[in-house]
Amino acid sequence: MDNFFKNKKVLVTGGLGFLGSNLALRLVHLGAEVTLVDSMLPDYGGNEENISSIKNSVHVSYTDIRDPHALPHLLKDKEILFNLAGQISHMDSMNDPIADLEINAKSQISLLENCRKYKPDIKIVYASTRQIYGRTDASKLTNEDHPLDPTDVNGINKMSGELYHRLYHKVYGLKTVCLRMTNTYGPRQLIKHNRQGFIAWFINRTLLDDKILIYGDGQQIRDFTFVDDAVGAFLIAAENSNSVGGVYNLGGIKPYSLLQVAQILNDINPKLKIENISFPEERKKIDIGSYVADYSKIKNELGWTPETDLKAGLIKTVEYYLPRLEKYLK
Amino acid sequence: MDNFFKNKKVLVTGGLGFLGSNLALRLVHLGAEVTLVDSMLPDYGGNEENISSIKNSVHVSYTDIRDPHALPHLLKDKEILFNLAGQISHMDSMNDPIADLEINAKSQISLLENCRKYKPDIKIVYASTRQIYGRTDASKLTNEDHPLDPTDVNGINKMSGELYHRLYHKVYGLKTVCLRMTNTYGPRQLIKHNRQGFIAWFINRTLLDDKILIYGDGQQIRDFTFVDDAVGAFLIAAENSNSVGGVYNLGGIKPYSLLQVAQILNDINPKLKIENISFPEERKKIDIGSYVADYSKIKNELGWTPETDLKAGLIKTVEYYLPRLEKYLK
Repeated sequence: MDNFFKNKKVLVTGGLGFLGSNLALRLVHLGAEVTLVDSMLPDYGGNEENISSIKNSVHVSYTDIRDPHALPHLLKDKEILFNLAGQISHMDSMNDPIADLEINAKSQISLLENCRKYKPDIKIVYASTRQIYGRTDASKLTNEDHPLDPTDVNGINKMSGELYHRLYHKVYGLKTVCLRMTNTYGPRQLIKHNRQGFIAWFINRTLLDDKILIYGDGQQIRDFTFVDDAVGAFLIAAENSNSVGGVYNLGGIKPYSLLQVAQILNDINPKLKIENISFPEERKKIDIGSYVADYSKIKNELGWTPETDLKAGLIKTVEYYLPRLEKYLK
Repeated sequence: MDNFFKNKKVLVTGGLGFLGSNLALRLVHLGAEVTLVDSMLPDYGGNEENISSIKNSVHVSYTDIRDPHALPHLLKDKEILFNLAGQISHMDSMNDPIADLEINAKSQISLLENCRKYKPDIKIVYASTRQIYGRTDASKLTNEDHPLDPTDVNGINKMSGELYHRLYHKVYGLKTVCLRMTNTYGPRQLIKHNRQGFIAWFINRTLLDDKILIYGDGQQIRDFTFVDDAVGAFLIAAENSNSVGGVYNLGGIKPYSLLQVAQILNDINPKLKIENISFPEERKKIDIGSYVADYSKIKNELGWTPETDLKAGLIKTVEYYLPRLEKYLK
């Protein structure tokens, strides 16, 4: 992999966000020429601190990918596009469904149309999500053939985003790959509010010696991918030409209940408190319940497996935030 | 049914279009107070001629439902919303995917948000489509549990439109019903160009003593719903309170191959010519192949069945257009 990315011209949308910035760090380390695009929308994941250690080694364009005039300039001469920009809050999608559609569906069409017209050979790796499956039978693993039946506006629009990528491969031959991510965690995640996934908020509570509120009995199970492992999947998908046109689940080493995650964090910081409360009605209606990914397809076809144990990943995460906490809370 | 619709205040989006105008005729006949909304976008189905016989019995508002300020006024005091406005051309959706998304997805969210805020008790019947199934195994009937995997931009955006309706039922309790239509034909359809389904274009060719070009061998099979039967399904779905939250396939009495349809039209007008040509590449890529609906769910739950034989329906269609052909070709 070292040689593959050396001097490669790479564009990352959502580049100052959680996944984008972690990916950028690895790409810089591998010798790629990295351009990061971010709209810096307030309350989303973009954060200057995320790229503080590489800011002199990357190009940054503060661009909303809904801007139709910017994309041809950004795509020019790029070889790989990591398409990570997205609105990821389920609650926000219900409160402002039009904004969610604009970002997760409309801008994806715009991006793909620009690739088709100006950069048809670019490799595109798209950050999709297991949210598009909706509620699954968690007594078995969910693979990529599972029907899609999202439970909220965000899931519907992210599904459209993925389907556009697959369509533009089938019809126009664009070299797209979609990775369906599960709960991803680690350094550089947005942790300042509780609308971007429970794991980020659990970490916030841990860092502030505060209290985790577990909705219901906390027995819903999920699998968790440490961000370095997720970055590895994006790099492999970009490098491996067999991935073209494919859809792949990511996953974790093993699933945990939400209560177990809280208990691991409590081991890491004994000042953390845990309390069970009843499930808030507006969240229950869109909650997907338990989910465990079958990631054997990406393992068999591309050779990716998650490598970071949950507790080890959470310790690394807490260690990252502690010395720079104010940069992530303001 | 006569009594149910008497004095009911009904709003029809896409009201000057094919399905909307046929529905309006029936609703006026049943004594409803009918308001028709249409954006009159060029090259879409809206046509003044469609409502010439009832223009003094309906209210017409020339409104693009993407206009956020108009909807509260249109919804005020309405009891039933037939939500039929849509972009239905598969080819147009590929040539202008953003416009397709704006009409088929964004405006649907806007409409549902307005219903949620200003008219939460309104009954909403949404015109969905079997296009959202994508390619199916035509050796068996396709029922509503079939996975959704649309083959073009239009299918993706129509799927989003349907999923939003179902979501707003589940989360907010809106009384939505979705009818997945199959090839529908009959009087008042747009027949002036070939981008709104082959059946409309076959009828155009028949009316002009011209030539039907069959793509490939013409052995793809489809089922066909005469518009009066489709109107009946929308009325039943509106009236029957058991339909709330449901999704129902419409269908035809029996399936026909495209070649058989052409031959029936040739029986009706012997001057019509038929020619097989190879499948145009850009259409083949998004073609769904054969499809036959299982409509037993709507039959069993709501009591709807198609009643019009294909040949009888096509004769009625041709008889409708012949004396007013110029109104549908300009």
